[in-house]
Amino acid sequence: MPHHPSTQHDDVVLAERHGPVLLLTLNRPEKLNAWNNALEDRYFDLLDEADADPEIRAIVVTGAGRGFCAGADMSDLQQVDKLDENGLPMRARPKNHPLSVRKPLIAAINGAAAGLGLVEALFCDVRFAAAGAKLTTSFARRGLIAEYGAAWLLPRLVGQSRALDLLMSGRVVRAEEAADMGLVDRVVAPEDVVGVALAYGQDLAAHCSPWAMSTIKSQVYRSFETTFGEAVEDADRLMQISLLGPDVREGVTSYLEGRAPAFAGLRGSDSTPG
Amino acid sequence: MPHHPSTQHDDVVLAERHGPVLLLTLNRPEKLNAWNNALEDRYFDLLDEADADPEIRAIVVTGAGRGFCAGADMSDLQQVDKLDENGLPMRARPKNHPLSVRKPLIAAINGAAAGLGLVEALFCDVRFAAAGAKLTTSFARRGLIAEYGAAWLLPRLVGQSRALDLLMSGRVVRAEEAADMGLVDRVVAPEDVVGVALAYGQDLAAHCSPWAMSTIKSQVYRSFETTFGEAVEDADRLMQISLLGPDVREGVTSYLEGRAPAFAGLRGSDSTPG
Amino acid sequence: MPHHPSTQHDDVVLAERHGPVLLLTLNRPEKLNAWNNALEDRYFDLLDEADADPEIRAIVVTGAGRGFCAGADMSDLQQVDKLDENGLPMRARPKNHPLSVRKPLIAAINGAAAGLGLVEALFCDVRFAAAGAKLTTSFARRGLIAEYGAAWLLPRLVGQSRALDLLMSGRVVRAEEAADMGLVDRVVAPEDVVGVALAYGQDLAAHCSPWAMSTIKSQVYRSFETTFGEAVEDADRLMQISLLGPDVREGVTSYLEGRAPAFAGLRGSDSTPG
Repeated sequence: MPHHPSTQHDDVVLAERHGPVLLLTLNRPEKLNAWNNALEDRYFDLLDEADADPEIRAIVVTGAGRGFCAGADMSDLQQVDKLDENGLPMRARPKNHPLSVRKPLIAAINGAAAGLGLVEALFCDVRFAAAGAKLTTSFARRGLIAEYGAAWLLPRLVGQSRALDLLMSGRVVRAEEAADMGLVDRVVAPEDVVGVALAYGQDLAAHCSPWAMSTIKSQVYRSFETTFGEAVEDADRLMQISLLGPDVREGVTSYLEGRAPAFAGLRGSDSTPG
Repeated sequence: MPHHPSTQHDDVVLAERHGPVLLLTLNRPEKLNAWNNALEDRYFDLLDEADADPEIRAIVVTGAGRGFCAGADMSDLQQVDKLDENGLPMRARPKNHPLSVRKPLIAAINGAAAGLGLVEALFCDVRFAAAGAKLTTSFARRGLIAEYGAAWLLPRLVGQSRALDLLMSGRVVRAEEAADMGLVDRVVAPEDVVGVALAYGQDLAAHCSPWAMSTIKSQVYRSFETTFGEAVEDADRLMQISLLGPDVREGVTSYLEGRAPAFAGLRGSDSTPG
Repeated sequence: MPHHPSTQHDDVVLAERHGPVLLLTLNRPEKLNAWNNALEDRYFDLLDEADADPEIRAIVVTGAGRGFCAGADMSDLQQVDKLDENGLPMRARPKNHPLSVRKPLIAAINGAAAGLGLVEALFCDVRFAAAGAKLTTSFARRGLIAEYGAAWLLPRLVGQSRALDLLMSGRVVRAEEAADMGLVDRVVAPEDVVGVALAYGQDLAAHCSPWAMSTIKSQVYRSFETTFGEAVEDADRLMQISLLGPDVREGVTSYLEGRAPAFAGLRGSDSTPG
């Protein structure tokens, strides 16, 4: 039932609809929601379903209990002896899968985010964090490298110097310092972080064209692989497409009429507006 | 008369010389200086004249009345029915023309900057904003994409996360939040914003080599299309050029003599110093 | 004696071991540590030695006396008449050599850093600055361009707008404004800046895998020349290498045992872990 994801309270990831916003909760609280294959499979499945469901316009990710995600489950890491020279076990989807979701993905960092847990937050488009939450890359302290594209995402988010500080030291920063750095976008009281993230998602769902948001997300990430001139040409081409679709007319008309817009949801693999 | 741009008080863009600094004022105050073809043509003409005029060393852009620029004139947007599949009407110059101006272009954001109005501010090199001024990309709320290179400029200015926040949500941020993000460089009292921007321009005009500023501007924007190694080679080549020209000697001598430097203005299409 | 660099108190660069952290002090205090060929040769030699010495795990750079580094020695700049069209004198190593050091390089900016002096601080991975310290690119005020890769490093550190502000204006910013911009990472009391930088280095030396830090540093700088997809592939490849080496086992085991890790130092030209 992709339109109404239903989950049991003991699933490794919980899914709960708040109107057009889907709330996903990493749910291994006894392990600080440490990442393992079962959690990854379920989380990525739910993201795929949400991406395909036209009724869902934004997705919020948080963690059950005290933490957001403590990183890779240590019991997995201790099995590195079992890895042979063929390397890592193959997974169904790339680890950075969340980046390909076409809808706004909002992190509500309710507590500690470490290692792969922090990287999952980096794969979100916007990050709200609970006051006092502890964030750390931690990789270098375990003899690990900057995993899954963190070395690419962090310097573009906070500059190369803060990226090097965070990645080489593996030190813990609190949400407040993280916000000063640009690592998170806003710090809110711990009891409000999910509510604020949901409200942000509701605002996007109520006022923004799903097609436009999807196109913009793609433009921004693609911009890092193009020259400025190419980005301008790309924007001109996309603007032409937008002007031929229904969303611009609805966006401008609703604005002039002082009412909320009624944009269509994003279908299967939409590349044209509304 | 390129050396002394003179404008009537009812022109769509006003030009006023303050010694070596040119003040351009978008002047459709009854429309919050909404952008239309006449305004664009005049603004771009004045930029071309200023770029060619050796007596002008810096340019400040502001808006008449309460706003900076409300974006594309809605009466234009409502005519999208008239666009055929050949797409957008051709314009004399690319929309991102301001980026090619060789002289420092300084935005004095006196009030609201929305959509294309905000993009025009992004095309400036440095941005001062009046306390409380409202800034918004607004595109996604009208069914529009990230226009004219905004999807390329914003992530490099404020990081990909804040860029996605600003572009996907189209929400309004005040000048103060914009400064925290790095979207504007400094917030000043509304009555001071033009004065502070002019003073900044006067300082550049009095103390900085026009050739060096032009070269540096080109280096910075070009840097995004090169590797670090290429940028270093480029800098070595440009340093050799600079050492053969008169500006280094004047810059060093005036410094040692404790006096202001007397650098030559930038001529036609200068690529050699002073 | 590369393992125990010893310097005389009147050397142009002083080297002092603090356990696994090497403190280098630019030492021409009567000239505000202005850069000349002798200082560059000695500084780069000491960096090479430190990079090759497995016992050294982090390097702190500071200046003797009131300033960090006043930039290129003016007595050199005044000799530009002697340069012919073959350009700059050839140097033994590229000016941006510090960027290739595999170990964390930490600037303790004790006082004024100008021109090339600021660029040397930019070549460090992390920057601590004394409260009130004056920082300036100064190039444009001397008729010079953005030298040695500053036009590439600065926009990635502070965004293109602040980079243009700093480079075109050559204005002086205090450490506090520099920290707001992201130009320095932390401001501390002047009497504490070296101590704080050394403590930061000690923390890296005590807790982080030298191989991991070296690999991460390389990943971050290389990330600017790759697409996101390539960076993820690169991370996957490096993660496989890390999982086959001893540092992951030691990092995870020591963590689970609640003790400090005992990582091996970085050898000659290490590209495999521990």
